[in-house]
Amino acid sequence: MSTPPPSRAELIGRLLKPRSIAVIGASADFAKINGRPLKHLIDKGYAGTILPVNPKYQEIGGRACYPSIAALPEAADLAVVAVPAQEVTASIAALGARGIRAAVVFSSGFGEVGGDGKAMEATLVETAQASGVILCGPNCLGFVNAFDKVFATFSQYADGETGAGPIAFVSQSGAFGTAIASLARQRALGLGYFVTTGNECDVSFAELMEVAIEDPRIKVAAGYLEGVRDGEHLVALAKRCRALGKPLVLTKVGRMAAGARAAASHTGALAVDDTVFDDVMRQHGVLRARNEEHMLDMLEALCQERPAHGEGLGIVTMSGGAGVMVADRAEELGLPVPQLLPETRAKLEAVMPAFGAAGNPVDVTGQFLAKPEILRDSVIHLLDDPAISVGIVWLQLMHAHTKTLLQVFADVKARSSKPFLVCWVGASPEAVQGLRALGLAVYPASERSVDGARALVTAHLVRTRGSPPPAAHAAATGERLPPGVVPTLDAVSILERAGLPMAPVRLARTADEAVEAWKAFGAAVALKIEAPDILHKSDVGGVLLNLDGEAAIRAGFEAVLANAAKAHPGSDIAGVIVQRMSRGHLELVVGAQRNPVFGMIVMVGLGGVLVEVLKDVAFRKAPFDAAEALAMLGELRGTKILDGVRGKPAVDKAAVARLLAALSQWAARVADDLVELDLNPILIGPDGASCVDVVMISEPRA
Amino acid sequence: MSTPPPSRAELIGRLLKPRSIAVIGASADFAKINGRPLKHLIDKGYAGTILPVNPKYQEIGGRACYPSIAALPEAADLAVVAVPAQEVTASIAALGARGIRAAVVFSSGFGEVGGDGKAMEATLVETAQASGVILCGPNCLGFVNAFDKVFATFSQYADGETGAGPIAFVSQSGAFGTAIASLARQRALGLGYFVTTGNECDVSFAELMEVAIEDPRIKVAAGYLEGVRDGEHLVALAKRCRALGKPLVLTKVGRMAAGARAAASHTGALAVDDTVFDDVMRQHGVLRARNEEHMLDMLEALCQERPAHGEGLGIVTMSGGAGVMVADRAEELGLPVPQLLPETRAKLEAVMPAFGAAGNPVDVTGQFLAKPEILRDSVIHLLDDPAISVGIVWLQLMHAHTKTLLQVFADVKARSSKPFLVCWVGASPEAVQGLRALGLAVYPASERSVDGARALVTAHLVRTRGSPPPAAHAAATGERLPPGVVPTLDAVSILERAGLPMAPVRLARTADEAVEAWKAFGAAVALKIEAPDILHKSDVGGVLLNLDGEAAIRAGFEAVLANAAKAHPGSDIAGVIVQRMSRGHLELVVGAQRNPVFGMIVMVGLGGVLVEVLKDVAFRKAPFDAAEALAMLGELRGTKILDGVRGKPAVDKAAVARLLAALSQWAARVADDLVELDLNPILIGPDGASCVDVVMISEPRA
Repeated sequence: MSTPPPSRAELIGRLLKPRSIAVIGASADFAKINGRPLKHLIDKGYAGTILPVNPKYQEIGGRACYPSIAALPEAADLAVVAVPAQEVTASIAALGARGIRAAVVFSSGFGEVGGDGKAMEATLVETAQASGVILCGPNCLGFVNAFDKVFATFSQYADGETGAGPIAFVSQSGAFGTAIASLARQRALGLGYFVTTGNECDVSFAELMEVAIEDPRIKVAAGYLEGVRDGEHLVALAKRCRALGKPLVLTKVGRMAAGARAAASHTGALAVDDTVFDDVMRQHGVLRARNEEHMLDMLEALCQERPAHGEGLGIVTMSGGAGVMVADRAEELGLPVPQLLPETRAKLEAVMPAFGAAGNPVDVTGQFLAKPEILRDSVIHLLDDPAISVGIVWLQLMHAHTKTLLQVFADVKARSSKPFLVCWVGASPEAVQGLRALGLAVYPASERSVDGARALVTAHLVRTRGSPPPAAHAAATGERLPPGVVPTLDAVSILERAGLPMAPVRLARTADEAVEAWKAFGAAVALKIEAPDILHKSDVGGVLLNLDGEAAIRAGFEAVLANAAKAHPGSDIAGVIVQRMSRGHLELVVGAQRNPVFGMIVMVGLGGVLVEVLKDVAFRKAPFDAAEALAMLGELRGTKILDGVRGKPAVDKAAVARLLAALSQWAARVADDLVELDLNPILIGPDGASCVDVVMISEPRA
Repeated sequence: MSTPPPSRAELIGRLLKPRSIAVIGASADFAKINGRPLKHLIDKGYAGTILPVNPKYQEIGGRACYPSIAALPEAADLAVVAVPAQEVTASIAALGARGIRAAVVFSSGFGEVGGDGKAMEATLVETAQASGVILCGPNCLGFVNAFDKVFATFSQYADGETGAGPIAFVSQSGAFGTAIASLARQRALGLGYFVTTGNECDVSFAELMEVAIEDPRIKVAAGYLEGVRDGEHLVALAKRCRALGKPLVLTKVGRMAAGARAAASHTGALAVDDTVFDDVMRQHGVLRARNEEHMLDMLEALCQERPAHGEGLGIVTMSGGAGVMVADRAEELGLPVPQLLPETRAKLEAVMPAFGAAGNPVDVTGQFLAKPEILRDSVIHLLDDPAISVGIVWLQLMHAHTKTLLQVFADVKARSSKPFLVCWVGASPEAVQGLRALGLAVYPASERSVDGARALVTAHLVRTRGSPPPAAHAAATGERLPPGVVPTLDAVSILERAGLPMAPVRLARTADEAVEAWKAFGAAVALKIEAPDILHKSDVGGVLLNLDGEAAIRAGFEAVLANAAKAHPGSDIAGVIVQRMSRGHLELVVGAQRNPVFGMIVMVGLGGVLVEVLKDVAFRKAPFDAAEALAMLGELRGTKILDGVRGKPAVDKAAVARLLAALSQWAARVADDLVELDLNPILIGPDGASCVDVVMISEPRA
């Protein structure tokens, strides 16, 4: 009876939680890259078997050392490969032959150096696949599993205290990742896993994180990204994190266009429009951090033990100005700072000095130093208010009062069940340590504490909002698109079946047919040339609007044909589309596009300067529901226009959201065929929305 | 022979640099608010005379103590007043009687508590003026002049090391100010002055800073503001800082609307639109900091000894991703990251490892640990490039290599004359101290180092750009405005004389006159009702556009009159304005307004949704020149529209800038009369700009 071969996820699980580790090319010099993993494994008490491999030694650090991979006494769960680049491929083959199925490869000199290195990396990948070995790296610093004291790394991070904690941190950069891990340690944020992914020639960021987050000891996932290779996998990871109720915080460099290109060229990943990345991540509940400090500010809030159960921020300060700064940042981040109940205000006024402020922000002034209960009771009363879900308490210095204040915070924590963050500017080290010992998050700078509170509230919103709709596939429905530029009549009918409000059209091959169509519509019409090779119809005089009356239709028909024939001689003209004119006071620009990183993406913007000059558009990965579409509309800078401005009526936003959701469902179904759909414009008028122009291009996915 | 009485500035100078200090209400308990100044003055070695006043003691700390102010043996330069609020006014009167002309008042219980406190503060101000005493506070923590060891304060800041340095820091908040001062100390940024201003019942933030910046030992001015009472004084301060070549960095809370209102109510200052504040400060070369940390990040760069002499940022990292993050932030802040000369690239390639990157950002990889000259020479070559004016070197951890790296930085500093900042994430305390000992700025977080570089470059740009034009006053030109709503004909002619391109108008009192005007223009015209009480003419049907032909003019004339009479029965209708229609493809909205904080402010925006929905406008204090107006246009989010979009031609931006500058010169001249001018819209067309609608309201300034 043979057991089935382990799945890839099982192998990654073994890699991250090995019962035995072989170190290929181990050195007895524990200061060297190939000696450091052994040192840490031994010093920090790894409980599994350690198997050094190097023909130069009989033993290292009291462990038997083996002359070759073949000579190993057992098929270890993991091999750490720390040999020169030229020897890596042979080592991997030998590992496979010895039944060792997972390796982490430190060696550099592969894809990252270009040229020969790229070819060598390709050979490495082939060999690993042929040998049945999964591979983390090359050109990585390895990883730490602090729970199980696995130190398959030469990162400086391992040199210090590496107490385990609830964060799984996976980094595409060794150097920056090590720095972030060390900053986390400085803030007493425990990393259960710290993984560097190197060139990701085989095992990817998302695969490693997917395994790490399933560990019940992990509560929060944090990632540092330089590029996105497989956006759909990243989205699947985000969905899984959400299902597990574990927030996923990501820092990705390349926020600006130039940076995105530089990062892509640096990592060999695909350049992704950062706006698309940002929107798709938000859609899937990812908390985006703009830099390392921002990420740690979020993690600190997410790692304290209490989740938020609502959105309202309550602020207590000893400086009116600090309260304003904190409230300003909250407004900027869309975090409500609610008015308090009259009962709450009365309770606050009863404990406060005369010149304090009992609103939100609460200003207790410096008087609380004489009477610490002023601070204690103010915070408790504020948190008791039903509108408040998370608190920020702002303090400065007060080094002489550290003990008293730590007692105040211990009392507050005991008497309230809501989360609160402490912003203590210029705190003493004792104060910071004392607060962390109480399980509280503490911030050194005013606005950064609000970023922490925002993360708590966002995690709550992600946890509680409905799940995204499942994607139906064309395979299930049998829905396919004809290849190439889809003829207008077909495109209109396809989209009508998908539930989109299409302006009525007919195809006229003769002027008589055009007149007939006009009569059938009983209203003014547009004439548009129909030919697969004329995509920009207006540019060639191929569009005439608002024609009414038989003579106008006949003349227009001939003009459109003549213009097209002149601009595109020999074009395969199918006829002229006759479309009933739609009325509208607002134009939407809507599109769907196959994105190389994230698959099918839907875009919406408001027509005119907002789209064309300010690039004011929002993206979502298809499919999504109407609630998500409403959020998408809300993200537009010009979103107020939908509510009616400059004397124009409000738009039925719910109807627009349904339109976008329906489009996204359809686009996801035909994702194997659809390359691009442009609905530009969709007119919104008194009769609702009407798609008056459609370009649909299809090409079966390879 | 009598000497003239000292000026207010001289008195403030004495206050900040006293040769003798009386402490009114001095306590022998040095832990108390009224004992701490004495303790610090004595302990830290103030060289002047210390004169405690308290009937309870014969001596305090070895100094004779006097029973009353009247009993003082000399008229001290400064009195520190630390008595209960009820006794302050009497003390001030006694100080005046004893010839003591400057006081800093700690006591609280005045305007900040409202009600009786406000009345008491008013009495205090009257008494101080009558007694010839200038007054800092009340309700302040006093101040430190660290150069001269003046500790007229009970701030916790004075408890620690208070070495003097090049920064003058003035704060409207005692608590937050003390925290910021302590953070500055943590970063080894020396404060020459640290002043808290309290209620500013007499001496203001700007007055104190004006005196401090004249001290030649001061190189940088830093302020924390909760509200702006006298914007014109703040502008004068900014101008003086610029003339002295000393950067002025300001943090002001109340960036958002709600925050601005809260701050105004907290401080009793006028609420100022934060956008106006921001724009006016930028106009006058102020560096705005968004929070305390941002301010210190700027100050750290400005306090290292080397100014920038250009704009280009050069970046060296050991992590490609960090380089991208730094470059992203630079792009976001408008800081160029220039391409390097081929010679520079060649020199970099000669010293770099194969897989490094010799562009900008330069990625030296981790290889420099083995060969530190890789880092050293890379930074030197990068800084040598003529396109580079300031460098950022990004490192992480490397605790074992601190000494080597400090030597590298010492070598770089010796071999290059350009400024560079070190961003060292997770640096050891020794590394940070070592860098500061070298006179280098060091940052703990990636993006924050770019904020430092941006401050250096902005200071360079402020230093080198031309001075703003002097304001001519109406008093000099004899130019006044008629009070009230200025009749259109007058307004047009006033603005024409000011150099603005006004659409030609005539006033018609009869239909015949309207027809005559139309004939004179020889083109289509607009008709607009003219009556001082009808400001919103369109709303009442008082405007008809594009009329041509005698019949149309006659009918239009009657319609406009009838509509106006119906909407405003009994209105004092002067007639109908006949205006030649102007052509235009772009609308500007321009205005001038008397701002309660900053005086005459000019605004510009692009008509349509940009102004009305996105509030995309820029402000400047009048007067300004065309270069400033161009900068103003460049700040509009929709600025690209001026370059021509959506098939429309580019606008002559220089002409628009001249128009704005001319308007600003005129508005400044008539600032004593003008309340509001709206030019909405100004049409930009093939014939240039044309102001087609004008509302001018005048009211002599009290």
